[in-house]
Amino acid sequence: MSFDQKHLLGIEQLRPDEITTVLDLADEYVDLNRRDIKHSDALTGLTQVNMFFENSTRTQASFELAGKRLGADVMNMAMQASSIKKGETLIDTAMTLNAMHPDLLVVRHPHSGAVDLLAQKVNCAVLNAGDGKHEHPTQALLDALTIRRAKGRLHRLNIAICGDVTHSRVARSNLILLGKMENRVRLIGPPTLVPASFAEFGAEIYEDMEEGLKDVDVVMMLRLQKERMDGGFIPSEREYYHRYGLDAAKLAHAKADAIVMHPGPMNRGVEIDGEIADDINRSVIQEQVEMGVAVRMAAMDLLARNLRAIRQYGETS
Amino acid sequence: MSFDQKHLLGIEQLRPDEITTVLDLADEYVDLNRRDIKHSDALTGLTQVNMFFENSTRTQASFELAGKRLGADVMNMAMQASSIKKGETLIDTAMTLNAMHPDLLVVRHPHSGAVDLLAQKVNCAVLNAGDGKHEHPTQALLDALTIRRAKGRLHRLNIAICGDVTHSRVARSNLILLGKMENRVRLIGPPTLVPASFAEFGAEIYEDMEEGLKDVDVVMMLRLQKERMDGGFIPSEREYYHRYGLDAAKLAHAKADAIVMHPGPMNRGVEIDGEIADDINRSVIQEQVEMGVAVRMAAMDLLARNLRAIRQYGETS
Amino acid sequence: MSFDQKHLLGIEQLRPDEITTVLDLADEYVDLNRRDIKHSDALTGLTQVNMFFENSTRTQASFELAGKRLGADVMNMAMQASSIKKGETLIDTAMTLNAMHPDLLVVRHPHSGAVDLLAQKVNCAVLNAGDGKHEHPTQALLDALTIRRAKGRLHRLNIAICGDVTHSRVARSNLILLGKMENRVRLIGPPTLVPASFAEFGAEIYEDMEEGLKDVDVVMMLRLQKERMDGGFIPSEREYYHRYGLDAAKLAHAKADAIVMHPGPMNRGVEIDGEIADDINRSVIQEQVEMGVAVRMAAMDLLARNLRAIRQYGETS
Repeated sequence: MSFDQKHLLGIEQLRPDEITTVLDLADEYVDLNRRDIKHSDALTGLTQVNMFFENSTRTQASFELAGKRLGADVMNMAMQASSIKKGETLIDTAMTLNAMHPDLLVVRHPHSGAVDLLAQKVNCAVLNAGDGKHEHPTQALLDALTIRRAKGRLHRLNIAICGDVTHSRVARSNLILLGKMENRVRLIGPPTLVPASFAEFGAEIYEDMEEGLKDVDVVMMLRLQKERMDGGFIPSEREYYHRYGLDAAKLAHAKADAIVMHPGPMNRGVEIDGEIADDINRSVIQEQVEMGVAVRMAAMDLLARNLRAIRQYGETS
Repeated sequence: MSFDQKHLLGIEQLRPDEITTVLDLADEYVDLNRRDIKHSDALTGLTQVNMFFENSTRTQASFELAGKRLGADVMNMAMQASSIKKGETLIDTAMTLNAMHPDLLVVRHPHSGAVDLLAQKVNCAVLNAGDGKHEHPTQALLDALTIRRAKGRLHRLNIAICGDVTHSRVARSNLILLGKMENRVRLIGPPTLVPASFAEFGAEIYEDMEEGLKDVDVVMMLRLQKERMDGGFIPSEREYYHRYGLDAAKLAHAKADAIVMHPGPMNRGVEIDGEIADDINRSVIQEQVEMGVAVRMAAMDLLARNLRAIRQYGETS
Repeated sequence: MSFDQKHLLGIEQLRPDEITTVLDLADEYVDLNRRDIKHSDALTGLTQVNMFFENSTRTQASFELAGKRLGADVMNMAMQASSIKKGETLIDTAMTLNAMHPDLLVVRHPHSGAVDLLAQKVNCAVLNAGDGKHEHPTQALLDALTIRRAKGRLHRLNIAICGDVTHSRVARSNLILLGKMENRVRLIGPPTLVPASFAEFGAEIYEDMEEGLKDVDVVMMLRLQKERMDGGFIPSEREYYHRYGLDAAKLAHAKADAIVMHPGPMNRGVEIDGEIADDINRSVIQEQVEMGVAVRMAAMDLLARNLRAIRQYGETS
């Protein structure tokens, strides 16, 4: 297996074979999680700390379960109620935590780049659980695993990412990953929500949903991130659903066996029709959640192996 | 042992011999909890998730300790800070969690029936930790164990449930359990707080406290649920205490060896005189809390055994 | 080893040889925490409950990691969201928790003496994690360990405690500990923040920072506890920094090898210059945090040994 990262900060830093390594190991953890006894001792004796500077029940839960099932001592730090309030800087908070000798640090932060900064200051492996509009690498990896299991491969697929691309770190990480694995990615949405600059990632941009969905293998819906839209264009939900919400009529333009994805939590009747979300022949939304735990187990397992090697032999790079 | 449930949703679903099975096993866990090393591996490798849509420090703590002492991986989800806020439905939340493969799901919810609904959607064992005004089965089981240990039996006892019956799922679950075990139950309180419809459970209804307490073996006080009284009659605390607060004078009407119970947290000087609450010859209020952990360990142990059997052999019903 | 305490309520109750016992064992735990596998089974099968009636992310995290690394089942109770709100008294809360059979109870409370009161009511070992302006014994112990490791000894040192002494339980516990170990302690600050009554602890009081720092071995800065100043004198941060903030000019008066300490979280530019805080040749602020986990492991380990002995043989005193 080949995975040479010290941290998991973004998809941007990963080679295609490293992505494959994570997904292959995650497949094994999917099997483990489906058993009664969901335990491995890959992280026994190690300390995992979840620092969420933004609330996210589902992502934090996914990381917490992943760590506990691998035998780690897991601690959640509620950062809103923390020293931050008392005027401490992010770096001081990080250094304080670092002095407690965590091994794996899972961080979500509202500012792009905050997690990278933090990783430079600590002696442990850092996992980015979402930083501003920048990256959300484990989301892209779980989406990739879901696609690979549904489609049998993760290359030469036509994949549409639809909706609020501008405010979405999920879109950004997926775009980078899917490009690296040699898929054709289309971005669909109104110009205000799909920045032209994203063409640099090799994506085609569509304003019309039906046109954009034509013959795709995968339809990846995004959540309308109203909480991140400050001052700019905020579409009415009704209008948005009419033009960009995924319903049966629009989905009919995709391939007959196209799968439907959503990172959750869903706004039913805004981004997606409830019936399509629940259609077990098309929707893989629950599988995405399941893959999430497995991918996080794989990522933490691989990072812990590298951490042990670095501590024993020093950094080779 | 005989316990054929897939979930613990309410006392209503339990046969008397199933109740006895839970209490017998709980007796063993009482012994374990009194030892230094309070550990069993009944739930090792299983995942327990506590989803509390209503705050309840003491009930959640009781379930959390129960699971940890049985070796489960326990995760608390703070549902107020969760996706619920982002507009996700209860069912979507349940399905998301289900995809993470929990084995035991402990749920408290402000709406009657919400826990039953949830149980239909997931693949794991669900325990109702209180739903609206409906049921709170582990509370009734811990009360039953407390009575059985104090009185030496759980049948043919005269038991008074006093106070705010209308808003109390505790009263409702106790009424059903005590009836199934062939006890005589009286409900005491003002007509506004004791609905006449409860006579259907076979209970006698008293408006006068002294009359109702005459010769009872067990006095079960309820908490005034002011937070659940919307718009209706709210008694002044002083007036309420005068008529329905348990003090020495009123308690004198019960049997000389009658025990006093309260589900907590107590409003001293409202439902109950502080001295009576602290009288170790009469009050079993601390024992109730102790039995709570043991009963929850027993319930989760039994449900986990059934879950494993269902997964291995399929459902027999 | 000699450690005869049932609880750790304050430094006041400890003999010098008991302090040394804690620090000696903590040294061993420092080594453990620096290893990959940070696990001992000193507390396996025991239940540790953290009850924080005041928020403190870092102290709670330190106790939580300490307990988990020793194998305890650790439960955090968020007391602000608890039954306290429902009108329950502190004693009722303690008795309720006690009935769940915790073995180690870690308590922080805004009122001086609340933790002592609680310790009288429960059957387990209680650790004071800070009570009002009274004591914060594990902070004093971790400071002592930090000094002993940096200076090679913990006696006959000149130590300055600077700043807001009045509102600081950290200062009070340190003053007592450092006095017991036969060090010379100076308190430096404006008269409003350094009560003359503290001379009773054998400390010299200085109003001038440069004079007070002359030839000291250790400079212990305190946090400005604005949240605890009600109605009294609140200095402007600028004025405060000018007169009492630790900068290079003031530090030059201390010994050339003097170390700089701060209990955190720091207000950079208020109590301390950021460059001094980060100077790894002078500042031991990160070491303090590291020692914190180790000292708490040692204290809980020793208390658990005594708890087991008391349960087996009864109290000897």
